[in-house]
Amino acid sequence: MKVKLLLVGKTEELYLKKGIATYIDRISHYVNFEFIEITELKNVSSISKEQIKAKEGDLILKCIKSADNVILLDEKGSVFNSVDWARHLEHKFSHSNKDIIFVIGGGYGFSESVYDRADSLLSLSKMTFSHQLVRVIFLEQLYRAFTIIRGEPYHHE
Amino acid sequence: MKVKLLLVGKTEELYLKKGIATYIDRISHYVNFEFIEITELKNVSSISKEQIKAKEGDLILKCIKSADNVILLDEKGSVFNSVDWARHLEHKFSHSNKDIIFVIGGGYGFSESVYDRADSLLSLSKMTFSHQLVRVIFLEQLYRAFTIIRGEPYHHE
Repeated sequence: MKVKLLLVGKTEELYLKKGIATYIDRISHYVNFEFIEITELKNVSSISKEQIKAKEGDLILKCIKSADNVILLDEKGSVFNSVDWARHLEHKFSHSNKDIIFVIGGGYGFSESVYDRADSLLSLSKMTFSHQLVRVIFLEQLYRAFTIIRGEPYHHE
Repeated sequence: MKVKLLLVGKTEELYLKKGIATYIDRISHYVNFEFIEITELKNVSSISKEQIKAKEGDLILKCIKSADNVILLDEKGSVFNSVDWARHLEHKFSHSNKDIIFVIGGGYGFSESVYDRADSLLSLSKMTFSHQLVRVIFLEQLYRAFTIIRGEPYHHE
């Protein structure tokens, strides 16, 4: 089983790239982890937000296999605390061999076709975070979940 | 009126320092902003968590004036979405000239004396974020609040 994080748009700031690299390195000690940035979308200045969302949606769906468990990071998603989320993930890991793909959309959100394909939605906060910064926030939370599942001290440090 | 962010402990990672500097620069266009790191606590390896919290609490209280409006970032705090929080801040700004101090505690949380002094508590998420990463998360949220108050496009980008 693999865990993947699929992102729309390049990570722009060097400091965010460093944060992402830090947590990918840590997560890779616990699970077969893949980080996928969809960066193909170019020349979007002449098309509408809805058209951008639709094109991004097509690119997201191309990265997803039919057996994958797809979880969108979305403000309408389920809310957990860190421990409950870790237990929820642990349950998924032990009851299925499906790859789990977390998806962080672009600045305009997800197209309807992506919502239709999703198995569930996860909300990190009622607050809206930058779709750039949320990459690091999510990875830290995923790393935290593995330390909670393993009973390691990070969460209580 | 000033807005201050008071932190316990040095920012450890260079990438977080870069993120903090980015948002401090942006926030400073909107408000007289001060960023204060309490870094004096040393040689703590021989004392208990409770003693560390107490010492950190004393250092926090030394930075607070009696007229200040003190808001602790705490998981037991009020939960807002970004727009509601911006409106809440706007109301504070327009109804009082008190300095507002946001406080992010150390890894062990706040002492009772700090809770006693606090005017209110704010929660960024039900999830627990690293007390290092939360510095950037909070500053991005504060910057976002100013753009919402001013009707600028950042929040909807």
